[in-house]
Amino acid sequence: MPLHIVLFEPEIPNNTGNIGRLSLASGSHLHLVKPFGFELSDKRVKRAGLDYWQHISLTIYDSIEDFYLKNSDKEFVYFSSHGDKTHWDIDFKDNLFLIFGKESKGLPEEITAQNSNSLYKIPLHSDHVRSLNLANAVSIVVYEGLRQLSL
Amino acid sequence: MPLHIVLFEPEIPNNTGNIGRLSLASGSHLHLVKPFGFELSDKRVKRAGLDYWQHISLTIYDSIEDFYLKNSDKEFVYFSSHGDKTHWDIDFKDNLFLIFGKESKGLPEEITAQNSNSLYKIPLHSDHVRSLNLANAVSIVVYEGLRQLSL
Repeated sequence: MPLHIVLFEPEIPNNTGNIGRLSLASGSHLHLVKPFGFELSDKRVKRAGLDYWQHISLTIYDSIEDFYLKNSDKEFVYFSSHGDKTHWDIDFKDNLFLIFGKESKGLPEEITAQNSNSLYKIPLHSDHVRSLNLANAVSIVVYEGLRQLSL
Repeated sequence: MPLHIVLFEPEIPNNTGNIGRLSLASGSHLHLVKPFGFELSDKRVKRAGLDYWQHISLTIYDSIEDFYLKNSDKEFVYFSSHGDKTHWDIDFKDNLFLIFGKESKGLPEEITAQNSNSLYKIPLHSDHVRSLNLANAVSIVVYEGLRQLSL
């Protein structure tokens, strides 16, 4: 898999459904870290992911500790509106893990503080907007990755 | 405005709300061409666009004819899963109009046929996915534009 999309405690079923569709379309692996704000069987997940859900390359984790334990040899980048560098600064490579926080609060502060060197933002051009919709943000980053990887 | 996002007959209120948020975040102007599949006052539009909606730079048209009449001197690119070229091939410039079709059917065939030289797709890597979510697709294209324009 060229890229790995990691959603930390996603809250909104439509977003996870749309990101599932995106992960399939982009040839990425999707990692979902519990707890979720919905049931994966929620019809809104399936509807947003249409009838593609069964084809998605998916791993589910009980907690962030479980995620780190099972991916201890991987390379991670993190996304936050507090990042200093932009997603265009990332040097994308095969098997990079892209870690996104929950819709309401983003990533926990202990994670962003410990990983400040690999913290990136998507630049925003309005004082009225603090963040993009999660599925839109993931889409922007993943396709910048595909562009760099010539995929 | 660096970029102009045009939604032709959008059907799903959440998508238009999220694209409103994106247009504000990206410093783009949003053009909506009627008929819509919802009322703009729909709470799902506002919720997805959060409390940003009032700040969006927005024009609404009664029809595609009305849109072309009022923008006859502009440069357009069109998006369709049937495009030969990818969105990375676009030579983005200030004031480019990015035209996206409705969620269920995309752009009408008479429009894509007449504009085949300026028809672009977002590359997809799965036979199971025919298209991305509309808001995700717009996000990918707009941020590629900002990258090229160094914004």
